[in-house]
Amino acid sequence: MTRGRFISLEGGEGAGKSTQLRALASALRDHGIDVVETREPGGSAGAEAIRALLLTGEADRWSARAEALLFAAARADHIEKTIRPALERGAWVLSDRFLDSSRAYQGMGDLNDADILELHRIGSGDFLPDRTFFLALPKAEAQQRARSRDGDATDRIGGRDASFHARVASAFTKFAAQEPGRIRTIDASGHPEAVTLRLMDALSDLIP
Amino acid sequence: MTRGRFISLEGGEGAGKSTQLRALASALRDHGIDVVETREPGGSAGAEAIRALLLTGEADRWSARAEALLFAAARADHIEKTIRPALERGAWVLSDRFLDSSRAYQGMGDLNDADILELHRIGSGDFLPDRTFFLALPKAEAQQRARSRDGDATDRIGGRDASFHARVASAFTKFAAQEPGRIRTIDASGHPEAVTLRLMDALSDLIP
Ligand SMILES: Nc1ncnc2c1ncn2[C@@H]1O[C@H](COP(=O)(O)OP(=O)(O)OP(=O)(O)O)[C@@H](O)[C@H]1O
Ligand SMILES: Nc1ncnc2c1ncn2[C@@H]1O[C@H](COP(=O)(O)OP(=O)(O)OP(=O)(O)O)[C@@H](O)[C@H]1O
Ligand SMILES: [Mg+2]
Ligand SMILES: [Mg+2]
Repeated sequence: MTRGRFISLEGGEGAGKSTQLRALASALRDHGIDVVETREPGGSAGAEAIRALLLTGEADRWSARAEALLFAAARADHIEKTIRPALERGAWVLSDRFLDSSRAYQGMGDLNDADILELHRIGSGDFLPDRTFFLALPKAEAQQRARSRDGDATDRIGGRDASFHARVASAFTKFAAQEPGRIRTIDASGHPEAVTLRLMDALSDLIP
Repeated sequence: MTRGRFISLEGGEGAGKSTQLRALASALRDHGIDVVETREPGGSAGAEAIRALLLTGEADRWSARAEALLFAAARADHIEKTIRPALERGAWVLSDRFLDSSRAYQGMGDLNDADILELHRIGSGDFLPDRTFFLALPKAEAQQRARSRDGDATDRIGGRDASFHARVASAFTKFAAQEPGRIRTIDASGHPEAVTLRLMDALSDLIP
């Protein structure tokens, strides 16, 4: 039994991560691949309990430091209980956000990128995706997509201001430049099916 | 306004931490000191929510790594929301367990002491008690005290086996030897009032 592949989708709000995750899962299943769809924070029973602590309550409920530790705890549980077992039985795992979101959201203020990577080492032994797609979308288009969604409540983290989101986008761009083997930037504009084709093309070397 | 002092009480189960915390608070109040009594995990709203995740559920609910991250997150919140504000207004803070419990309980298996200290640096900037008392009690006496307590449910962490608790006790002894300025070993046997007198004696240099 060959170990499956672990793929994460990253990008700002409204970039199309959730849409593309579903489409990519379906395209991979058409290739006969067993696919597990998951997301962060969450993706296992313990991590979902931590997610509830992270995404509810006042915007200042947690300090940046406590928040980073909670994300790292949730990720350790997600990897141990959901991701690793699936990969070991040969399934592919697609995750809607993963470590690079913590680096972009929590690693630019009171904490830096080295701190977030250190938490990941301690929590999860530097476990990384085989490939990470950064869905890059011009800000105006991302905001329009996010606005057009009905009934999608703004949570503690989504509700932050525009300059915060600009810093997040520039952080993702920097990570992609630092790790070109793992992190691939994908143009997320245009028709959803066109984006899915770009993703499948950028995965073709991994598909048996 | 002089900053207050932060004191932690450590020791195995049944060593008398909770008993002595109450007695010490009362003795310090007799000296006109404003005292805040707190405990870990917990001691602030966020930390108590994390405590509920840590102490309920199956014994293997959390891996050692996820557990260590959750304790560090709770501690960061406890320090920021409860301990620091109290010290800044001049109160003394007494905590029933603190960092050294994480070092003893979580830093001896999948993680080591350096990892736990690193989590504390990232979460709480190396914030340490002014003094830590390790209540040392022969194992048989500790077990007898713990057994004689009525209706005290065994939680996820208290329910571990005897060799685990022996390793915890030896870890505390090692920490006390490494940091003799901060960590003082106190004989916890004998009458509770005798133990309190020993603690007050070992605090006399800090009392105004
Ligand atoms: N290629 C696309 N063209 C136009 N609209 C799109 C496209 N992809 C997704 N959308 C729409 O844009 C909105 C955001 O997409 P989606 O929920 O997939 O983004 P997301 O990255 O998961 O966002 P969030 O970070 O908020 O979860 C949705 O209403 C979705 O239907
Ligand atoms: N000096 C003492 N002599 C005899 N019994 C004691 C003494 N101190 C405490 N006890 C009793 O021993 C039991 C354990 O004490 P206590 O709850 O203070 O310990 P603890 O260190 O807080 O334990 P835990 O880690 O389980 O919270 C209690 O029933 C308490 O009344
Ligand atoms: Mg989404
Ligand atoms: Mg107690």
